Amino acid sequence: MSDALYSPPNLDSASAARAREHLDSLTKPPGSMGRLEALVEQLAGIRGEPFPRVSPPGVLVFAADHGVAAEGVSAFPQAVTAQMVANFVAGGAAINVFARQIGARLEVIDVGVAAPLEGPVVIDEKIGPGTANFAVEDAMSRDQALAAMAAGRRASGRAVEAGCRCLIVGEMGIANTTASSALLAVLSGRPVAELVGRGTGVDDAGLAHKRAVIEAAIAARAPDAGDPLAVLASLGGFEIAAMAGAFMEGAARRVPLLVDGFIATVAALLACRLVPELRDYLIFAHRSHEAGHGAALAALEAIPLLDLELRLGEGSGAALAFPLLEAACRMLSEMATFEAAGISAGPA
Amino acid sequence: MSDALYSPPNLDSASAARAREHLDSLTKPPGSMGRLEALVEQLAGIRGEPFPRVSPPGVLVFAADHGVAAEGVSAFPQAVTAQMVANFVAGGAAINVFARQIGARLEVIDVGVAAPLEGPVVIDEKIGPGTANFAVEDAMSRDQALAAMAAGRRASGRAVEAGCRCLIVGEMGIANTTASSALLAVLSGRPVAELVGRGTGVDDAGLAHKRAVIEAAIAARAPDAGDPLAVLASLGGFEIAAMAGAFMEGAARRVPLLVDGFIATVAALLACRLVPELRDYLIFAHRSHEAGHGAALAALEAIPLLDLELRLGEGSGAALAFPLLEAACRMLSEMATFEAAGISAGPA
Repeated sequence: MSDALYSPPNLDSASAARAREHLDSLTKPPGSMGRLEALVEQLAGIRGEPFPRVSPPGVLVFAADHGVAAEGVSAFPQAVTAQMVANFVAGGAAINVFARQIGARLEVIDVGVAAPLEGPVVIDEKIGPGTANFAVEDAMSRDQALAAMAAGRRASGRAVEAGCRCLIVGEMGIANTTASSALLAVLSGRPVAELVGRGTGVDDAGLAHKRAVIEAAIAARAPDAGDPLAVLASLGGFEIAAMAGAFMEGAARRVPLLVDGFIATVAALLACRLVPELRDYLIFAHRSHEAGHGAALAALEAIPLLDLELRLGEGSGAALAFPLLEAACRMLSEMATFEAAGISAGPA
Repeated sequence: MSDALYSPPNLDSASAARAREHLDSLTKPPGSMGRLEALVEQLAGIRGEPFPRVSPPGVLVFAADHGVAAEGVSAFPQAVTAQMVANFVAGGAAINVFARQIGARLEVIDVGVAAPLEGPVVIDEKIGPGTANFAVEDAMSRDQALAAMAAGRRASGRAVEAGCRCLIVGEMGIANTTASSALLAVLSGRPVAELVGRGTGVDDAGLAHKRAVIEAAIAARAPDAGDPLAVLASLGGFEIAAMAGAFMEGAARRVPLLVDGFIATVAALLACRLVPELRDYLIFAHRSHEAGHGAALAALEAIPLLDLELRLGEGSGAALAFPLLEAACRMLSEMATFEAAGISAGPA
């Protein structure tokens, strides 16, 4: 294991048990708040607090380009990555809107956008001008993968030091569903055909082409599935590596990690292959419409909170799910107990 | 048709079309916000505004007792209805917590709690001290059913006049899953056994007893399924009638109706049997863990937003879903367009 990888603390079972006990004293039939009850127990265990808080959340959007975009695998041209970063800066993207709604601190980190970016708003952690084309050669070196992970860790550190109590990790990168599908195929051992979707919207011919590109690249790169860092270097993206690092640092700092869609889930799977204890810190926001997401969730035995046919990325689905975490915490800390409210006992 | 029943206006198709058109100009792949896109189109049509707003929401909690509680069908004693109303007034119930989170105006209306309630906070619209025991006689007269519906209509009117742009209609009433299961069995024609659940938590023997009570009552009362008001009078509850009235008035005033769990869905089904055009105004918040909810949703061809195994009532699940409506509206009104953001076109 590299020095860059370290395990988070175990969940605090005493805080989780205290939360569970308090839940059963509240003025509601036992268990009647369904999945919110298990959720707040998990949050208590993560935070090490019997009455956890998750606000304010921090949103980290990592942006990078992908050499494999040259193979024509995306419905949008590569220039859109930088254009969307400018949109994030201007506040006009979906993640900006939803981050404002939930009162989140939002940071955009350039870990490898091909075009030069101007202005002081985007955090400059550029590893390179996009990855190499993994249809031809490894996407990045092992050192670059570690450097991108370290950039992700620093971003989580900044968010937590700024007071964020929950992390939403998003991404922007034209062709990154291609990279994610390739990573997932190797990490899960499942056939590429099951895992490749339309991304931002390729047509049937585009989908067949994307699948062929990925299958050929996996055969050519042939990374060892048992060496997740090698898989990442062969087929990954700088933003995917950074997301994995962001998850690791968030867990190390006892912060719940609200996982967005397909690409974020693949990054989380990669992070869990490197640091299995990370799994306890993950909360899955939604089941995306992107084809491979179900397989990525299954590999993590994850059942998401929402199922709304979203397929945007950026962290948008996680931001939409965040109010449920906030509600679970408020339920625990603000509801009256049967005893305090003087209400007759229900079932024993 | 009674004078008490009147149809809402048709949805404004021009506003919905304008919303749809604007959605496709926003900086996201077309359709990538999944169900939120259809949702905001519906909201535009309901409100008659191409850029609809749903905040602040109004929560109406109708409370009443049920004579059938005397048959021992609930896990909690009847006194809990009044005790929970006191809890609503004190701000300690789940719906209070979630209403605060979403900035809702909350009103509690007594349409038939058996115990006298004190204090000026609860709106007094008591039809009677609980319904009659429908295992023995009709739950209420036709006039009482109409009076309870009128109380519900007045509550929606107050909320809308106070500025609420979305209505969440909740309830409290020990034994009201029994009444709702009975109503649903007659309205849907499905067997009672499929529709009876544990409510606040009866055990296996309690469940079998609840089922037997409902089956016997339906056989004895034998209301005409084609006369929804007769079904309501035979087997309903004052709060269920009031909820139906609240839905009708909300729709008449072009306000989206966010339907909570089992009891609210049965009230919505009843309202739609009386005024079919109401269906266009309904948004279904969640799929409850209560056994009959799936059948009630199916009868309305409804696909809820959330599926979190909730089974509390009070409007709590609808309040949890509300941030998704708010997000859908903000997406439409706050996101940048491709043109304004200078982003390259995607798929044609």
